Amino acid sequence: MSEVTRKGQAAKLASYSLVGKTTADKNKALRKIAKQLLEDQNHLIQENKKDLEQGKQAGLSDGILDRILLNDKRIEDMADAIQLLVDLDDPISETLETIRKENGLLIEKKRVPIGVIGMIYEARPNVTIDAATLSLKTGNAVILRGSSSAIYSNQALVETIHRALENTAIPVEAVQLIEDTNRETAKELFTLNQYLDVLIPRGGKNLIDTVVRESTVPVLETGAGNCHIYIDESADTNMAERVVINGKTQRPSVCNAIETILIHKKWFECHGRELLDVLHKNQVEIYGDEMICNSSSLAKQATEEDWYREYLGLSVSIKVSDSVEEAIGHINKYGTKHSEAIITNNQENATMFLTNVDAAAVYHNASTRFTDGFEFGYGAEIGISTQKLHARGPMGLNALTSSKFFIYGQGQVRE
Amino acid sequence: MSEVTRKGQAAKLASYSLVGKTTADKNKALRKIAKQLLEDQNHLIQENKKDLEQGKQAGLSDGILDRILLNDKRIEDMADAIQLLVDLDDPISETLETIRKENGLLIEKKRVPIGVIGMIYEARPNVTIDAATLSLKTGNAVILRGSSSAIYSNQALVETIHRALENTAIPVEAVQLIEDTNRETAKELFTLNQYLDVLIPRGGKNLIDTVVRESTVPVLETGAGNCHIYIDESADTNMAERVVINGKTQRPSVCNAIETILIHKKWFECHGRELLDVLHKNQVEIYGDEMICNSSSLAKQATEEDWYREYLGLSVSIKVSDSVEEAIGHINKYGTKHSEAIITNNQENATMFLTNVDAAAVYHNASTRFTDGFEFGYGAEIGISTQKLHARGPMGLNALTSSKFFIYGQGQVRE
Repeated sequence: MSEVTRKGQAAKLASYSLVGKTTADKNKALRKIAKQLLEDQNHLIQENKKDLEQGKQAGLSDGILDRILLNDKRIEDMADAIQLLVDLDDPISETLETIRKENGLLIEKKRVPIGVIGMIYEARPNVTIDAATLSLKTGNAVILRGSSSAIYSNQALVETIHRALENTAIPVEAVQLIEDTNRETAKELFTLNQYLDVLIPRGGKNLIDTVVRESTVPVLETGAGNCHIYIDESADTNMAERVVINGKTQRPSVCNAIETILIHKKWFECHGRELLDVLHKNQVEIYGDEMICNSSSLAKQATEEDWYREYLGLSVSIKVSDSVEEAIGHINKYGTKHSEAIITNNQENATMFLTNVDAAAVYHNASTRFTDGFEFGYGAEIGISTQKLHARGPMGLNALTSSKFFIYGQGQVRE
Repeated sequence: MSEVTRKGQAAKLASYSLVGKTTADKNKALRKIAKQLLEDQNHLIQENKKDLEQGKQAGLSDGILDRILLNDKRIEDMADAIQLLVDLDDPISETLETIRKENGLLIEKKRVPIGVIGMIYEARPNVTIDAATLSLKTGNAVILRGSSSAIYSNQALVETIHRALENTAIPVEAVQLIEDTNRETAKELFTLNQYLDVLIPRGGKNLIDTVVRESTVPVLETGAGNCHIYIDESADTNMAERVVINGKTQRPSVCNAIETILIHKKWFECHGRELLDVLHKNQVEIYGDEMICNSSSLAKQATEEDWYREYLGLSVSIKVSDSVEEAIGHINKYGTKHSEAIITNNQENATMFLTNVDAAAVYHNASTRFTDGFEFGYGAEIGISTQKLHARGPMGLNALTSSKFFIYGQGQVRE
């Protein structure tokens, strides 16, 4: 039996025993994980160093090495995040619907765990702790499949979790790490329908696309954000500049950062050069349409591909539009259905934009950077869903739950 | 451009224009469809005859021919069902969450249409009307891919829908029928992610399994029901018999019918023969374990495969269990996570069963036949989901909706 099948089977069995656990049982286990992380701090940092050294030898970029890095601060942050998770309401057993039938049947729809969650992710070892603790809080077992670049860290973190779970009500089998990081083990997870209830990819576009394309297990798609901001004819100049600069430069590597700016022609004629100057001053590289390139010698000509691009850095595509309708059409064609904003003082145009743009989050006069589980007050975030089924936008604990109908009778049969 | 791509593109465009339609607009169009169905009644029956003749020549069974059949009664029932749909609340635009942030941002999570729904189905032409009208009520465009056995009926029905939609606010492009029923067009739909937001298979296990396995478009899995009834030690004898006979014989061809009976050993020792007799009297063929076969010369030995079987007819598998835990283990191993019942007077065992059996609907002292959108009071049913994401159990109109965050600001940026 392969590692994946064996661990899948063990996780499934563990998931059955998690169904009936109380909030107190789950929180006690979570607190133990937080405590154990701090106790194992030195060992974790030592194991993490092996990943960093291996990464340096393999020529990984500083950006990726930073994602792999564990230090005292980061481990303490993990422990703090678990404490916040303990304080969140347990969604399991919430009654979602109550139906009473004339024949006396009582039907209750309640929240239940999903079962076994598969998490496929790259680099960041903090996802190991995140995924495991969010899964346990919601009564799910989890199968973790991180990347080879963080394997020492992930192994050490899962050992810490297992040590913590010993002598708690939560079985250690509820958290499984796939230690063989060969591509084949990821592929095995894609079709492990027998034991896996959902697969969540966390990482770059390639990883996500592969999982969506090859997986027969239902997928929660997260991630890619080619977010737009549309500056309408009546937009306030200062507000437009402030929101553009925030959306583009405050943290350009994240999925809710702005990647394309669309500008109404009339606004551009009055304020366009000023906006381009501000972008230049903020070191933002510009890929523009003809009108943009004619207005700025620093702008490069955008290709068709650039309208699809998620730069995740200090670059932006800019296009001049004739109308809000044209901007909506552009976004629905090139966007990734993540977060889209309009800056306007025209209420009618705002409503048209918010209604017709097809995205998880649509903004009127605010930065797209707010699309985030913590900003929305969920207290936790599994990721940001860009699909339309099950969950859309920032996913809190509820996204890791399913529902079940409990029906109570006195011998009723159907006529 | 292939038929599937062309119609997919047209449906996607139509779906954008459906987003802003009012409830009144949608209901007016639905009423027109109901009216047109009655006006076109003779033509529809005439076209349906072509399918029936073709089917007879191809040697289709009486059961399948009956599924294909349209007559006055069935067409009038379709029109009546549309009238009931008109009367249902429109789920679109319902506010699901309201979040007010300290910085003045107002975040509203609202119900929106999913976009474009793909429906792949077999035989029954009534699914054509069902799928189209449920989709329109929820603001979705739909792509219908029926089978060749009902192609004349489906073409005539979609022509009726198109005639009805002319001169309404709903574009005729919102309802697309794939007329080429070659296997390849189904396959094209499986990967039409660009235009399709969800794919719903309605039909036999083979169809559903193929769609789940090959589709990269998210799937709403419906259908297969290997439903169990477990008769516990303390079960009331009359109630157990009544519920078993109802679950097995009232309508054996449907997914919520009973396929396996599990019986506690002690109950079986006292009442087993009587139950087997009642089943025999009701023409139910029995596949049993050793203990069953020893008690009845009419029972056949069940094979390992029989525990997985959905007979959809007057046959049943029966097994004697030592405990409720053993019954739960059997169901979680062989079940399809549809509907499962326990008959018991022991509250503790009932709670254990309901909590630990992994299924969309779990019953204490009632027949599994109640798992149905109409029985649950939803007024409509898309199907019964046996998956855990998005929707589980009977799916009403809400299952055809997604959500979207609308965020209203005054220039807020993230610090």
